[in-house]
Amino acid sequence: MLIPIILSGGAGTRLWPLSWGDHPKQFLPLISNKTMIQETLLRLKGLELGAPVISCGEGHRFMVAQQIGEVSDVKPAIILEPMAKNTAPAIAAACCAAMKQDKDAVVVVLPSDHVIADVEAFQKAVKAAAANAEKGYLVTFGIVPTFPATGYGYVKASGDESDGAYRLEKFVEKPCLEKAQEYLASGEYSWNSGMFVFKAATFLEELKLYNPEMAELSIEAFEKASIDTDFIRLNTEAFGKIKGDSIDYAVMEKTRKGRVVKLNAGWDDVGSWSALYDISKKDENQNVIKGYDVITLDTTSSYIRGGKRTIATIGLDDVVIVDSDDALLVAAKGKIQDVKKIAEQIKSRG
Amino acid sequence: MLIPIILSGGAGTRLWPLSWGDHPKQFLPLISNKTMIQETLLRLKGLELGAPVISCGEGHRFMVAQQIGEVSDVKPAIILEPMAKNTAPAIAAACCAAMKQDKDAVVVVLPSDHVIADVEAFQKAVKAAAANAEKGYLVTFGIVPTFPATGYGYVKASGDESDGAYRLEKFVEKPCLEKAQEYLASGEYSWNSGMFVFKAATFLEELKLYNPEMAELSIEAFEKASIDTDFIRLNTEAFGKIKGDSIDYAVMEKTRKGRVVKLNAGWDDVGSWSALYDISKKDENQNVIKGYDVITLDTTSSYIRGGKRTIATIGLDDVVIVDSDDALLVAAKGKIQDVKKIAEQIKSRG
Repeated sequence: MLIPIILSGGAGTRLWPLSWGDHPKQFLPLISNKTMIQETLLRLKGLELGAPVISCGEGHRFMVAQQIGEVSDVKPAIILEPMAKNTAPAIAAACCAAMKQDKDAVVVVLPSDHVIADVEAFQKAVKAAAANAEKGYLVTFGIVPTFPATGYGYVKASGDESDGAYRLEKFVEKPCLEKAQEYLASGEYSWNSGMFVFKAATFLEELKLYNPEMAELSIEAFEKASIDTDFIRLNTEAFGKIKGDSIDYAVMEKTRKGRVVKLNAGWDDVGSWSALYDISKKDENQNVIKGYDVITLDTTSSYIRGGKRTIATIGLDDVVIVDSDDALLVAAKGKIQDVKKIAEQIKSRG
Repeated sequence: MLIPIILSGGAGTRLWPLSWGDHPKQFLPLISNKTMIQETLLRLKGLELGAPVISCGEGHRFMVAQQIGEVSDVKPAIILEPMAKNTAPAIAAACCAAMKQDKDAVVVVLPSDHVIADVEAFQKAVKAAAANAEKGYLVTFGIVPTFPATGYGYVKASGDESDGAYRLEKFVEKPCLEKAQEYLASGEYSWNSGMFVFKAATFLEELKLYNPEMAELSIEAFEKASIDTDFIRLNTEAFGKIKGDSIDYAVMEKTRKGRVVKLNAGWDDVGSWSALYDISKKDENQNVIKGYDVITLDTTSSYIRGGKRTIATIGLDDVVIVDSDDALLVAAKGKIQDVKKIAEQIKSRG
């Protein structure tokens, strides 16, 4: 049985001031009229699926329940993390939940803030990945790069394609531009998407092998979870002892069972306002304009997201404007990554 | 008797979205904690004055009454224009009101949106102008230029200074940069300030001479005004027939009685956000920041005026941001003059 695991623990501060605190980006309708997490689940529609497993923080549980309920007839398993421990422990606990449904479950692990334009190509890749997972491999999707991106990590695939997958040779960190250009030219590298397919049991075995303490504590946190009608609350004591780490570091970089399924489906991770600009439809001045009432004069290549008020712009190029009830962001698009600093600064003062 | 005439009919659309409709800039505390119109009157404090005459539109009458009342013990004459007819008819009607107080009144005509840093120098100039007015001259203040401004008209003074005044040779329109540089180098040109001093009777005589129809209709509009406790409502029929014009065109460019008193007192007309930037105190990044909660990263030479929300900026240079309850302006400082187009566009759609 194929079971979706949706990771929804992120705070999404890079989309401040819209995504922030109680309303991280995965719960916002940023691209369509469905929210990002709803789109994540809807993207699998048509495949034979078990009940989805969602991992999120305590504070977002009602939003998850509400939004998943709106697009799914099946009751999801909603796992609440008492604190953030990065992706590996969250996935381990979710694998335990998946195995309660089906001990042979194949899981498709999806962050809740990705965009994929070509759903058909995506589902085809998921099927290829699932076939490899059935054979005991840990599959990562490698996004076929469309430009020499320096904002993503890469995976190197090697060998010939077999059953739709390549051997996973190695992960590499975010490169400089020259390296990224080399990677693009070689054809051997693809972007590390953060989406995975494997048997839940295989993942737990590999985690036990390479990080036995994390495996034990994650399983314990799930076994001792307090369960009510709607939510599975992981055991705070066990989960709290875990030294948090990402699935890449904890398992994928170490496993010998890694495979890469290449994905060429208009993927984007909507990690930032500039990424949102890149994937959105532009008007004749190369502007992306959302919202109630926006008047532009001599304004080009800008992303303008209005709130409840009129916005007027004059003589701007390559600027991001995001208006919300509480706050306003005006930034050069090329420096938009620094919005994290703003969000941290505001968080630190409480 | 010296009587202030304060012109407060402007809409101030160049300071949209703050100055707009019911709240044009003269009624806002843009520079100090007093509003611009209050500062205009307070700037004369210490001189022996009659009751001020204020000219404004019907819609602003209570604001004028309230704000003048807060800074003046003397009951003002508040003249309501039924429609805008530019400055010459407004001044003519105000001169009639001044002559009701004192038929030999010398009036000092002041727009309500100017800033003057050196009040002592200003009052000294007013006294010199009044002395010349007593002799039958129409005096304009020529602002000693501090840079080759292309945003102002100029007046050319000639002859020797006599009793603090020069002969007014001519008015010239807003020049190109080369011309402005010539004017600055010559020492003979100064900025046309729009502030005047003359005997009310002299002005009306000169208006009769050069524009008899306007003179007649303005006087008729005043004579047939409907007067209640607080306001003088000019007669709509007579005032409506006037072909509106500025005092410069209607009288000052034609009169042979023109004099120029030079003024070097830190004058500014606060005509635009960039002018406001120019005259405001800058921080170490050459930013002018007003308002509740503004966080800047890599931001320089910008004017940021916050409203009730947090504003964060990243990587901006030479930008104007003005946040209000209803609207937000983000503009390149060099193109800020186009804010008029925005205000007109919004007005035209109602």
